[in-house]
Amino acid sequence: MFDKITIIGCGLIGSSLLRVIDKKKLSNKISVFDKSKEVSVFIKNNFSAQVLNDISESVKDSDLVIISSPLSSYKEILLSIKSNLKKNVILTDTGSAKKEINKIISNLNLEHVHWIASHPIAGTEFSGPEAGFAELFENRWCILSTENQKDTKEIDRLKSFWEAVGSKVKTMNFEDHDHVLSLTSHLPHAIAYSIVRTVMNNDDKFKNEIIQYSASGLRDFTRIAASDPTMWRDIFIDNSENILKVLNSFSENLEEIKKAIQSKSGEKLNNIFSSTRKLRKEIIKAGQETDKPNFGRK
Amino acid sequence: MFDKITIIGCGLIGSSLLRVIDKKKLSNKISVFDKSKEVSVFIKNNFSAQVLNDISESVKDSDLVIISSPLSSYKEILLSIKSNLKKNVILTDTGSAKKEINKIISNLNLEHVHWIASHPIAGTEFSGPEAGFAELFENRWCILSTENQKDTKEIDRLKSFWEAVGSKVKTMNFEDHDHVLSLTSHLPHAIAYSIVRTVMNNDDKFKNEIIQYSASGLRDFTRIAASDPTMWRDIFIDNSENILKVLNSFSENLEEIKKAIQSKSGEKLNNIFSSTRKLRKEIIKAGQETDKPNFGRK
Repeated sequence: MFDKITIIGCGLIGSSLLRVIDKKKLSNKISVFDKSKEVSVFIKNNFSAQVLNDISESVKDSDLVIISSPLSSYKEILLSIKSNLKKNVILTDTGSAKKEINKIISNLNLEHVHWIASHPIAGTEFSGPEAGFAELFENRWCILSTENQKDTKEIDRLKSFWEAVGSKVKTMNFEDHDHVLSLTSHLPHAIAYSIVRTVMNNDDKFKNEIIQYSASGLRDFTRIAASDPTMWRDIFIDNSENILKVLNSFSENLEEIKKAIQSKSGEKLNNIFSSTRKLRKEIIKAGQETDKPNFGRK
Repeated sequence: MFDKITIIGCGLIGSSLLRVIDKKKLSNKISVFDKSKEVSVFIKNNFSAQVLNDISESVKDSDLVIISSPLSSYKEILLSIKSNLKKNVILTDTGSAKKEINKIISNLNLEHVHWIASHPIAGTEFSGPEAGFAELFENRWCILSTENQKDTKEIDRLKSFWEAVGSKVKTMNFEDHDHVLSLTSHLPHAIAYSIVRTVMNNDDKFKNEIIQYSASGLRDFTRIAASDPTMWRDIFIDNSENILKVLNSFSENLEEIKKAIQSKSGEKLNNIFSSTRKLRKEIIKAGQETDKPNFGRK
């Protein structure tokens, strides 16, 4: 499919890509760069990929370069690799916010580089290369975004790559991507972090009880609140405008519930609580969630 | 274990109790009352329990009466059954808020009735008798609360009942119960309802995308927001004081995150996001959550 692929940043997502590229033979050569020595050693010990200490060296002759590191690292990475990029290389990433990154890359005026952003909607609450697995992208969506609409051939190649990896592909412009993801992903993460912090700060006296009785709701939120801090720090900075907007809208909704509780208005509460069942049914119908009670957890 | 048990209200929890009592032969006779004709027919068709149309009749000669209906129905139920309760009956329930209920029951001055509240920390996002199953209470905690500390024999009998059903039992006073559950259960539910509403109200244009990309976080919250509206309406009214307190504390925590986003303070965000990973590990260690990525969902 590609003669050579380079993966820069080999955590949960990067190492899962490495595994599936390897397994399905999606390239003749794979090279990997990770700034962490520990990660590099892990990759060397467990995979046949070429692991390089020189980031610029790692992209040489690559047809597809995938940046899979925190958003704040992109600029430095791009400055380090740009002189060594192959002519007509496809440059992509796996980041969760797009608009700011696209500005940075556009301002670099990379020549003969086809920049097409990718966002695989896939992950777990674990991080690091040990947590990766080849099936991570199966039946998950991957969103492609680019301003270079004339790159139809390259868009098709990248689309085929993600499909080979197991994903379904949609395209979306950068602005719409960041707006929709602020609702489906960034808002839930901000809230999960807040709720777990609220509970942790609230009560030392009942710490054991809180852990014991967490199955009454709280445990669900601790999953998302266990996500990688660095990755999420960068997303909140890059997509701050959209996130603040939806957080304000969330606070308004919460104030409405608070008022209904304060006034003990059963009818109002009933209306609020009845309005939210539908969405889960639609998500299950769309194949994006299990229909088993309690996520099928034992 | 008991000669006769009565279950009043036969939804998810009541019907799961019926199934496990039946399966493990925890009583010689079981009688059931549910005000819904549909539920009564379902029970008649699927179980050997006696299903009565007269609630007062259903508790006659029972040694254990379990109220498993929404909190707002308790008072009427108790007024209807009180004259027919057997002398020295154990009266319990399965409700998620306790303090208000205890006041109501204390004010009724029931004579020769051993009132010991139960709260099994078990459930799913589904409701109704079809959703019940005999294993629902296995390895889950059940909290007993009573002000009648001299009822040691009856407390022990009820404890043995819940243990036979598969649960681990703790006792807690009414106030502490309502405080701890406002953190572990009521807060997460209020937030989940708010977040799903925020997303549903926010955007008609991207409705399909929101459903498609819900695996990026949102889907987790839709599970809890699909819980039974009537049950939750009553919990929010009965435990309003504690719930408002923790919601205010949550809002303060959220404001802190908002400020860190506004000022793009990476260090602050990193500290916030790093502080929350620990709780999940402790919950998993306590056997209250799966350690599998993504709840082990496929």
